Amino acid sequence: MMIAFITLCMGVAGIGIIFTLIMQRLLNQRTNSDEKSARIALLIRQGAMTFLRQEYTILAIVIFVAFLILGHIFSRAAGLAYVAGALSSMLAGVIGMRAATRANEATTVAAKNEGERAAFITALMGGSIMGFVVASLGLIGLGIIFYLFYGTAYDMIKIFTCYGVGASSIALFARVGGGIYTKAADVGADLVGKVEMGILEDDPRNPAVIADNVGDCVGDTAGMGADIFESYVVSVVSALALAVSQYANNLVYITLPIVLCAIGLVASLVSLLFFFKFATKVETFLQKTTYSAIVLFILGAFAYLYAFNIDMNLFGSIALGAFAGIIIGLATDYYTSGSPIRKLAETSKTGAGTNLIYGLSIGFESVVFPVCAIAIIVFVSHTYFGGLFGISLAAVSMLATVAITMTIDGYGPIADNAGGISEMSGYGPDVRKITDKLDALGNMTAALGKGFAIGSAVLAALAVFATYCQEAHIPHLDLFNAVVIAGFFIGGTLPFLISALTMRSVSRAAWKMVLEVRRQFSEIKGLLEGTAEADYARCIGISTRAALIEMLLPGFITIASPIIIKIAFGAQGNMALGGFLAGATLTGVVLALTMANAGGAWDNAKKYIEAGNLGGKGSDAHRAAVVGDTVGDPFKDTSGPSLNILIKLMSMLSLLLAMM
Amino acid sequence: MMIAFITLCMGVAGIGIIFTLIMQRLLNQRTNSDEKSARIALLIRQGAMTFLRQEYTILAIVIFVAFLILGHIFSRAAGLAYVAGALSSMLAGVIGMRAATRANEATTVAAKNEGERAAFITALMGGSIMGFVVASLGLIGLGIIFYLFYGTAYDMIKIFTCYGVGASSIALFARVGGGIYTKAADVGADLVGKVEMGILEDDPRNPAVIADNVGDCVGDTAGMGADIFESYVVSVVSALALAVSQYANNLVYITLPIVLCAIGLVASLVSLLFFFKFATKVETFLQKTTYSAIVLFILGAFAYLYAFNIDMNLFGSIALGAFAGIIIGLATDYYTSGSPIRKLAETSKTGAGTNLIYGLSIGFESVVFPVCAIAIIVFVSHTYFGGLFGISLAAVSMLATVAITMTIDGYGPIADNAGGISEMSGYGPDVRKITDKLDALGNMTAALGKGFAIGSAVLAALAVFATYCQEAHIPHLDLFNAVVIAGFFIGGTLPFLISALTMRSVSRAAWKMVLEVRRQFSEIKGLLEGTAEADYARCIGISTRAALIEMLLPGFITIASPIIIKIAFGAQGNMALGGFLAGATLTGVVLALTMANAGGAWDNAKKYIEAGNLGGKGSDAHRAAVVGDTVGDPFKDTSGPSLNILIKLMSMLSLLLAMM
Repeated sequence: MMIAFITLCMGVAGIGIIFTLIMQRLLNQRTNSDEKSARIALLIRQGAMTFLRQEYTILAIVIFVAFLILGHIFSRAAGLAYVAGALSSMLAGVIGMRAATRANEATTVAAKNEGERAAFITALMGGSIMGFVVASLGLIGLGIIFYLFYGTAYDMIKIFTCYGVGASSIALFARVGGGIYTKAADVGADLVGKVEMGILEDDPRNPAVIADNVGDCVGDTAGMGADIFESYVVSVVSALALAVSQYANNLVYITLPIVLCAIGLVASLVSLLFFFKFATKVETFLQKTTYSAIVLFILGAFAYLYAFNIDMNLFGSIALGAFAGIIIGLATDYYTSGSPIRKLAETSKTGAGTNLIYGLSIGFESVVFPVCAIAIIVFVSHTYFGGLFGISLAAVSMLATVAITMTIDGYGPIADNAGGISEMSGYGPDVRKITDKLDALGNMTAALGKGFAIGSAVLAALAVFATYCQEAHIPHLDLFNAVVIAGFFIGGTLPFLISALTMRSVSRAAWKMVLEVRRQFSEIKGLLEGTAEADYARCIGISTRAALIEMLLPGFITIASPIIIKIAFGAQGNMALGGFLAGATLTGVVLALTMANAGGAWDNAKKYIEAGNLGGKGSDAHRAAVVGDTVGDPFKDTSGPSLNILIKLMSMLSLLLAMM
Repeated sequence: MMIAFITLCMGVAGIGIIFTLIMQRLLNQRTNSDEKSARIALLIRQGAMTFLRQEYTILAIVIFVAFLILGHIFSRAAGLAYVAGALSSMLAGVIGMRAATRANEATTVAAKNEGERAAFITALMGGSIMGFVVASLGLIGLGIIFYLFYGTAYDMIKIFTCYGVGASSIALFARVGGGIYTKAADVGADLVGKVEMGILEDDPRNPAVIADNVGDCVGDTAGMGADIFESYVVSVVSALALAVSQYANNLVYITLPIVLCAIGLVASLVSLLFFFKFATKVETFLQKTTYSAIVLFILGAFAYLYAFNIDMNLFGSIALGAFAGIIIGLATDYYTSGSPIRKLAETSKTGAGTNLIYGLSIGFESVVFPVCAIAIIVFVSHTYFGGLFGISLAAVSMLATVAITMTIDGYGPIADNAGGISEMSGYGPDVRKITDKLDALGNMTAALGKGFAIGSAVLAALAVFATYCQEAHIPHLDLFNAVVIAGFFIGGTLPFLISALTMRSVSRAAWKMVLEVRRQFSEIKGLLEGTAEADYARCIGISTRAALIEMLLPGFITIASPIIIKIAFGAQGNMALGGFLAGATLTGVVLALTMANAGGAWDNAKKYIEAGNLGGKGSDAHRAAVVGDTVGDPFKDTSGPSLNILIKLMSMLSLLLAMM
């Protein structure tokens, strides 16, 4: 009977897919733009797709090699599961990005022809395609593996792990590459355009402007999608593994993680459709939809546990995990848009130095609450609700409503890009005002999304860590064992190394972009006057090449280091690797939070000043705030997010190594 | 017979004290300045002593309360040991600072009247007083406790621990308070003086200039002295504790840590006197003296181990620890003065944003080598050379030559201040050239000193951590125990919280200083023209008050948090506290290294540009580099160093809690 439930779950996923197809069709009907905006949207779409194509070509090699290795070590089925995980992640990226680039244009047109609400709904439709594709594809992949391998001679958990590693490895490159792409373009465009030439953001005379908009798509949409897809898959895989070992063949418990995801998907869909139909105000739409989806999920989970007579202690973990996402998100929101922002803006009056000191101190402080919250969740879940399985269920529950959180995450860059397209198409201040408002709504929830991405990454990584300790057959992972301590310290340095590399990559790529933009301004006659057109393609080419080349080193270090540790410590490899994971997870999460929140704070302090406070645009305070924002850009969009993947991928790889 | 060796060790400490007295007398004879420089030196001396007096008045309350609590919980002897540790640290601070403020003046005079070599030797004499006082007082304190309590009914290790906690708690306030004092003055002086008024560093017209010079004394001299004194005491205490439990009553092993310190003190003294007598070039003096002291120490330790038939495996740990200090120092030197500096200076050409991104990436990367080196030392010491005792011996050995390292650390701010006094006294460019050169020599070795302070802090903390695990009777400190993980994550956030608080303290205090300096420039007629004198005392008062008030919160959080964790987790308090310590130590060391090295890099990149590269002073690149330096100031001199103490103090406190 429980296997029939898996069929039902896949049916739910099928409904999710059908929903995205309908959304896609509605969106295509809405795209009805004039020649100018159509051309700009096309440039962005082409740039984004070109990047994805080239990125995926490189990744095809990685996937092929991994297939051979995993097939050789485990089984051909394991190798294929890896390929399936990787392809699912890529497919989610392509579908989400196509939708986003369409929705950009449609949102602009809607803002011009139909007004605020229509534009808002259009942008949200675009985001929902990414959200529901991520959730549905994940559920389908997990369900199929369960179907095919449960009760067979194959070790199902190994197959699942390979599927998860497939998703993880793609996510790493997507996040790092996308992050470098977007910030090279953004910083390059700003340094010459805003600072040297004094032209506005999204001015079509800036040669890097299209690359900047493409960057929003490949970084914020495709990168974030791959990141969350990975968290989703990884947390379910670890919960399955723990369920199998903790509840033997009790199918009610083993299928629980997958069923929870299905419940979350239904809750998300119901909530979104309800507010599509009945919500009147756009201002509170995003929050209300999120909260109601989470409440629906919790109610559904309770009903399911009750109906199937499942240990009600587990419900505690589920509720805790589901609420924790909101709590961490709210903390992020406070540090990146609450009172700290006004104080940060104040410090800009004494220059960039004080702005930076204060911004960093906000980033540092913002670590405390979310990490302590995670510590308490882990402790309470484990001690009172369900042991290690409880921790992994908390992670699954935080991610169960991923469809709605990713919808809102996808909404942000669409609204942002719509503003860019309207600016470049010369649609005037009325249209821009609408898109600016939509963009501001997106910024509020982007903080929520980022906190959520980090929170879920840590919980997922911890769940995998627990599975690792079980699979590696380490009776004790003693912190006063010298091997564990050595691994622990070495692991703790890795997030710092990867951050150094990615920040420097952005710095190098942005520098190339600066040179190219300067060259175009000096060599293309009439560019600044608006009579000649910039050579956008060259700037897109610079970002694309930089991203593809620069993503390789951090990617390979991340993949190679657990393997090196395992080999270097020989017979004690699993112990050292356990310490290594613990160290990397801890410093990874604190550094990721610092970067995400300091970056967000600088960004919003700058926007606060640009809104006319403290002298507004062009004042000394604004100049200082722009410096803070420049530092914050790679923090929040490149290095910080890369660490989310790093901690998940390394724990998945270690789990795989432990199974060898 | 071994007890006779302790007598011998205290004899060595006595020689160290006599040496400092001779140095002090020689220094007093050399102070022969004209009225102008004498007056400035007096202002600095008075400012520094006023600060110490007020700080110590507040700390007297802390000490008294701690005495009552410890006396109540343990024994009156334990309470007195705490007081002795605290007073030794304070005494070392007073003596070292008096010497430094005398030496400032004497060095200036020597540079004016006698030339480079004499000035160099004078500054070094000043530094050596701090260095040898720290080493000798530590040795005497440890020796007396050994004498009084070994073989008595008292638990000697408890008494030693209380002595160490005394030193630790004073160090915390000295470091945090001194760090805030110096950077409030420095940043405040620079922001108005250099940036707004366009006057040079150390210009006597700047009202904050004396406070800035006082800050160098209380932060770099007294703060650093208390920090290293603490490391020294703490590492010996943990080694003693481990020796007692590992070697029962075998006195040869139990006395070994103290004997090693005495050997290190002799090696330092011999090396310093040798080079005083025979060295001809000042350029290589500092390095040569350090290296030769370490080599002498290793030879002496080998001879001792051989003569007393001590397990030669321990020699491996001793050599490893002694060399590790140099290796970590050299890595620090590379990141703060090698090729990264030139690249960092290059990035200043595109503005403050790129300078900051690159500087942070240097800081992040600089973590990798030292921390991995420590991991390898821990692993190798433990596995091949001597178990937990091996780790603690490595820590003791790194610190055994503390007299010479502190001498060189003390030298730096003296040379720096001598430049300031000569500038303010109007001694002209020839004298300034000499002091600038001496200052540059100090900067090179300051990097060494900072790396050494962090490296020794981590090793000492790890040694205490090992002792903690033993005393807390935790059979396993399992990283997959939910209680340990919870403590681990909470602990990992603490260094970030303390850094946020201290950075904000500097920011707030600097802001008050800016307002006061601006006020003086606008209200005191003739100040900018040089016809009226600034009101230095008010600026000194601002720094003093800010430091004393702002040091309290971070101090109490650091002291309270292990206690809260222990109580909050009830029966599992010791487990949670173990995880907490591990987390705090890891994030503490990586954050401290990032801050120290990024700060050093920014400072030196600015100096590189000021030396005439890339457009020199007043260029755009210089302005960008100044912003980086402003951010680096609290990084390297306030928040970063505070973390050294944090990780040591919390582990000592936890050890004490475990003994309850």
